[in-house]
Amino acid sequence: MKDVSIGIIGLGNVGTGTLSILAANAEQIAQKLGFRLKVAAVCSRGVAAKTLPEGFAGVFRTTNWREVVEHPDVEIVAELVGGTGAAAEMIEAAIVHGKSVVTANKELMARSGAEIWDRAIKSGINLAMEASVAGGIPIHAVLREGISGDRIVAIYGILNGTSNYILTEMEKHGTAFDAVLAEAQLLGYAEADPSADVDGYDARSKLAILSALAFGERITPEDIFVEGIRRITPDDFDYAHQLGYTIRLVCAARQTEAGLVLSVRPALIPQTTILASVQGAYNAVWVKGQFGADTFYYGRGAGPNPTGVAVVSDLMRVAREIRSGSPERVSPFAHERLGVYEPVPVTVQTRPYYLRFRVKDRPGIIAELAGILAAKKIGLEAVLQLPSESKDDLPFVITVEPSSEASVREAVEQMSQLDFLTQPPLALPMEGGLG
Amino acid sequence: MKDVSIGIIGLGNVGTGTLSILAANAEQIAQKLGFRLKVAAVCSRGVAAKTLPEGFAGVFRTTNWREVVEHPDVEIVAELVGGTGAAAEMIEAAIVHGKSVVTANKELMARSGAEIWDRAIKSGINLAMEASVAGGIPIHAVLREGISGDRIVAIYGILNGTSNYILTEMEKHGTAFDAVLAEAQLLGYAEADPSADVDGYDARSKLAILSALAFGERITPEDIFVEGIRRITPDDFDYAHQLGYTIRLVCAARQTEAGLVLSVRPALIPQTTILASVQGAYNAVWVKGQFGADTFYYGRGAGPNPTGVAVVSDLMRVAREIRSGSPERVSPFAHERLGVYEPVPVTVQTRPYYLRFRVKDRPGIIAELAGILAAKKIGLEAVLQLPSESKDDLPFVITVEPSSEASVREAVEQMSQLDFLTQPPLALPMEGGLG
Repeated sequence: MKDVSIGIIGLGNVGTGTLSILAANAEQIAQKLGFRLKVAAVCSRGVAAKTLPEGFAGVFRTTNWREVVEHPDVEIVAELVGGTGAAAEMIEAAIVHGKSVVTANKELMARSGAEIWDRAIKSGINLAMEASVAGGIPIHAVLREGISGDRIVAIYGILNGTSNYILTEMEKHGTAFDAVLAEAQLLGYAEADPSADVDGYDARSKLAILSALAFGERITPEDIFVEGIRRITPDDFDYAHQLGYTIRLVCAARQTEAGLVLSVRPALIPQTTILASVQGAYNAVWVKGQFGADTFYYGRGAGPNPTGVAVVSDLMRVAREIRSGSPERVSPFAHERLGVYEPVPVTVQTRPYYLRFRVKDRPGIIAELAGILAAKKIGLEAVLQLPSESKDDLPFVITVEPSSEASVREAVEQMSQLDFLTQPPLALPMEGGLG
Repeated sequence: MKDVSIGIIGLGNVGTGTLSILAANAEQIAQKLGFRLKVAAVCSRGVAAKTLPEGFAGVFRTTNWREVVEHPDVEIVAELVGGTGAAAEMIEAAIVHGKSVVTANKELMARSGAEIWDRAIKSGINLAMEASVAGGIPIHAVLREGISGDRIVAIYGILNGTSNYILTEMEKHGTAFDAVLAEAQLLGYAEADPSADVDGYDARSKLAILSALAFGERITPEDIFVEGIRRITPDDFDYAHQLGYTIRLVCAARQTEAGLVLSVRPALIPQTTILASVQGAYNAVWVKGQFGADTFYYGRGAGPNPTGVAVVSDLMRVAREIRSGSPERVSPFAHERLGVYEPVPVTVQTRPYYLRFRVKDRPGIIAELAGILAAKKIGLEAVLQLPSESKDDLPFVITVEPSSEASVREAVEQMSQLDFLTQPPLALPMEGGLG
């Protein structure tokens, strides 16, 4: 069968990883496909000075991406630039030129994936985006094919490696958020502007894509409740452990009676759940299916090679489909069939909550807080106070029985007015039932 | 697009689960595919008396599987009978009649998968077998598509739910093997003849399939070293925990300098590894890729619904490929390209080992055992003896530094002659490096 030629736009981390794997595994790929994947063109800033892997010496190099998209040999364009600006133009141009597209672009697919798919299908080309979520975990292949026969009830993910690294370092060493973040920045695990990671926006884009695929609705990042990890302290881990829990930035998508509830937020999860064993920069996805019950997927969330594997695997699949003449006929973003998602506020959910206070100690504090909870009909479960050095900024914890988030928020709002608090209470849901 | 009609042979656990899911998810399946999956014919002993799910009342029923295979509407035959006898005939007949095949048959695919695939490809039909290994875990989709671009370095699996249930029950409750087995049989988790499960043969068939897919070699179950779990005692868990390990029936396929080493055997694995958190009847697969590093997959190993999800997902994929005119062109069993596997004996491997003895206590025992190890140049790491009630059947443990299995076996063989042993020593490899 005739070889398939690829054009690669972007030789950053992912592009470089992709090229190395294409070079190292060329024979294996040819054996699996029955034909070869050839790189016909690469585009990158400063491409002339780049050292390409052995075997790619003669590849056409350009700094103008249009020359890749319009290259007569190129049948698949790999968009590995990222962002929602030029990348959108590149993909659009590829579709117009009848080229299939492989992309690692989470922002763009989270924001405009459904529209891009629609245009791709109308043009009869194929689109693949395994690398856009949880780099090393083939969660797209799992949802698209592996368990496509099931009906998904819930997804719980750890989808931001930087946040998970920071949280698990805080947990292990008792170091404060700012110190761990600074260290992560030094090591290159966190950006100079860490907001996308630690405030949950990166994870939110990934959850938008995953939940759109899993539930067949049109979901954009803004539909998802988001709360970052900046307020988590080492104390919180000590208290969580006392309760048999740990804390992770949990991406959750759940079918409830009120509809699909979507959130990215720090939550307490049982230490015994397999999700709690996800350490450092790893990602994981827990899927609850109506028939298949619990399945769990784990791997590196990022990095040139794990993400490169996702891109190369996509290139192989798309190439196979090109040679067998079968582009996708149905978009994985099924909004045309099932409609646009109507956001359901997280305030409808009922959960036990962890409430952490920091106070200037004086008698009567617990009574006053308990009074506010009682007035909202929120049942108190436990009061925990670990030994502390300071009476002026004393942390302690109240856990409450399953309550609606709406009433918990009202209580927290009211508590925030109390003069003995040194900062507003921190309220985190406690997620049991994670296997 | 025209609907695709299915014939189902076998209405046991898996067949029943498959039918329920096809009924319950009919609309969702149609949305994902762009056409409907219809059940045209079912075959089973006593089929006339079976209650089929709503909507399947008018389906053609027969006790003669040939009527399913030869049914003019049937485009895909689901062989859900199992075993290597009639099932082989059914699949052969389906291929001859140009029907695609979905199978849950692990014994047959482990033994003859490569040949069956060859005939399927020559006939231009498609074959799918997700349900044949680790029912609820879509590990075929992962290896075939999700991470197909990577080069697999090693696979570690927990692939037999019954053994894992027995081991984790022993671990939790300190109950002896025979008692847990009897309880498992009572609960229906273990067969009256438990050999296939507890002696490792079921897991071996699954590893034969997975390793053939992952490494592209022709591997049959007999190529794989197998050792069951009958000799494991609650004491072994106590000693393993002291060492920071637990014990699981580990299916391992590893690329080594000597070649691909394959084994199914009880092994010590670190308690901190995510594989150690696999409890009860769950299955799991740990994949080490050269580029993608560690990925991990977890789910139910069996059961009508999880396995039914695998069958239905396969039916959807095969139906999609039929309608888009693209059967697989390349067998996932790549033996024609890479040749038949030459078994590499496990004796080549170098590992730390756990040696557990049961002795009639008397002075000088440790010295005598240590002498045998020293003569074989096996370095002693630790000697452990937990409090015990009996001096006549006293358990204790020696762990040794990384040594070749060949020399450890020679030492164990020599030790077995010693008159103070009440049974031969138990030697288990200690698997570090599992993430």
